[in-house]
Amino acid sequence: MNKIPANEAKISDQAVTAFGNTPNPRLRQVLQGLVCHLHAFASEVELTEEEWLAGIRFLTDTGKLCDGVVRQEFILLSDVLGLSMLVDAINHRACEAATETTVFGPFYIAGMPERGQGENMAFSPGEPALVQGRVLDSAGQPIANALLDVWQTAENGMYSGQDTEQPLANLRGRYRTDGEGRFAIRTIIPVSYPIPTDGPVGRLLQASDRHPWRPAHLHFMVMAEGHRTLVTHLFNHDDPYLETDVVFGVKDSLKVVYQPCGADHPLAARYDFSGPFRLATYDFVLERA
Amino acid sequence: MNKIPANEAKISDQAVTAFGNTPNPRLRQVLQGLVCHLHAFASEVELTEEEWLAGIRFLTDTGKLCDGVVRQEFILLSDVLGLSMLVDAINHRACEAATETTVFGPFYIAGMPERGQGENMAFSPGEPALVQGRVLDSAGQPIANALLDVWQTAENGMYSGQDTEQPLANLRGRYRTDGEGRFAIRTIIPVSYPIPTDGPVGRLLQASDRHPWRPAHLHFMVMAEGHRTLVTHLFNHDDPYLETDVVFGVKDSLKVVYQPCGADHPLAARYDFSGPFRLATYDFVLERA
Repeated sequence: MNKIPANEAKISDQAVTAFGNTPNPRLRQVLQGLVCHLHAFASEVELTEEEWLAGIRFLTDTGKLCDGVVRQEFILLSDVLGLSMLVDAINHRACEAATETTVFGPFYIAGMPERGQGENMAFSPGEPALVQGRVLDSAGQPIANALLDVWQTAENGMYSGQDTEQPLANLRGRYRTDGEGRFAIRTIIPVSYPIPTDGPVGRLLQASDRHPWRPAHLHFMVMAEGHRTLVTHLFNHDDPYLETDVVFGVKDSLKVVYQPCGADHPLAARYDFSGPFRLATYDFVLERA
Repeated sequence: MNKIPANEAKISDQAVTAFGNTPNPRLRQVLQGLVCHLHAFASEVELTEEEWLAGIRFLTDTGKLCDGVVRQEFILLSDVLGLSMLVDAINHRACEAATETTVFGPFYIAGMPERGQGENMAFSPGEPALVQGRVLDSAGQPIANALLDVWQTAENGMYSGQDTEQPLANLRGRYRTDGEGRFAIRTIIPVSYPIPTDGPVGRLLQASDRHPWRPAHLHFMVMAEGHRTLVTHLFNHDDPYLETDVVFGVKDSLKVVYQPCGADHPLAARYDFSGPFRLATYDFVLERA
């Protein structure tokens, strides 16, 4: 890096100073930090006018593609730049006993149906699976009536909402724990899938020779009174993209095995499986609020 | 700034590394620099999830407001963050003899009418003015047939295109220098005006207690064969916002005085002024390409 010429350093100082009267001290800190790093970036790489304009166009296209429902290209951009995982890590520093967190992602839809214990949320084909376990507090005590909001893609790699062929409630649902903190979700095994590549983020990945794949996972948002809401995924332990997740979301503690079970397994009758199915078991641990 | 925890530093490393295979070396440098500074910003201010989401929404709103004609909210954002002036400075380091540059701004419209020497480009009220001078090369020789693309706001502070009351060609035009490098533009004295405050950039300025005003100026893009295109403004020398231009665009060498002239001034007859007018004179110096 070359020394920054005095007139350029002066522009950066002026810009940082201009935000010095921001009444809210936290906003002032964030804005001045942002301006400082934005200018340091431009100075360090000696950004050309063409590159600046390409950046303006990239951001404009990214905004234009956001539809307010399931397409949020700026979240996707934050995800592939690793910013989402960094913010997640910064905000979950003090929870060593609790289940690890990962990115929220842009495909959550609120208000999906509440489903009964073990109820099937899959209305599209796939390998039948049961995901069961408990929700515990950090002392290991089960939490009754915890809410698990769950979502995943269909076998074609698309979330409902992205894909007009699927009913909106497909592979989405809210489950509650019973008196012993137990939950059971009947679904299909998650598959790996590429994030949307038809927009600016896809062009960015292509230009940087990165693949767009996420390893197979099931999304969870777990809520219980008096506890901090947990946003995480469970990843299939044998997925080929675990090491190179395009959004950097994988943590070892979030891998689960989907065990093969026959139609004679005791859970088959209880949850209405007429043939073989896969069984994954995981206990979530919530931190006190 | 606290020490960055190891797991957070690891996420930032992974993200920078992920762009390490970018085939174009310049793009690789820019992307890795961007990721590096973006992560350093988030780590330094310990960005919260709410702040991150506010940022996502801010960028989304900014993109939505861009209309591809005269409203380019991302350029406006770059302007008020001082980034546009910094990029301008980085890209015009080696032109000490040449006229200084300033921001392009988001309000330029291409293809405006070519006008004759001294032709009036004002079709809305204002204080009549003549802006005249020469276009020179860096050796001081006049450049014939140079093109000056000129634009400014009306007295209401709005550019044509922003304001449906104005014809699109109002206060816009392309002028050519004569055989002695001379140009003359009949117009009205520029006024100071606030940048658009009805969008995310306006909210940002309000939250940071910054005014939205730009000092009065006339925009120029000056082009001549064999020379580097010059993008600049001429600022009214006595404007109250010269020191606090919201986009940091002012340079001392770009200030001009609009001298009062009577109807008996020799130029009045030549350029058809029937009453008093103001006269500003400026020579532009272009750098060889």
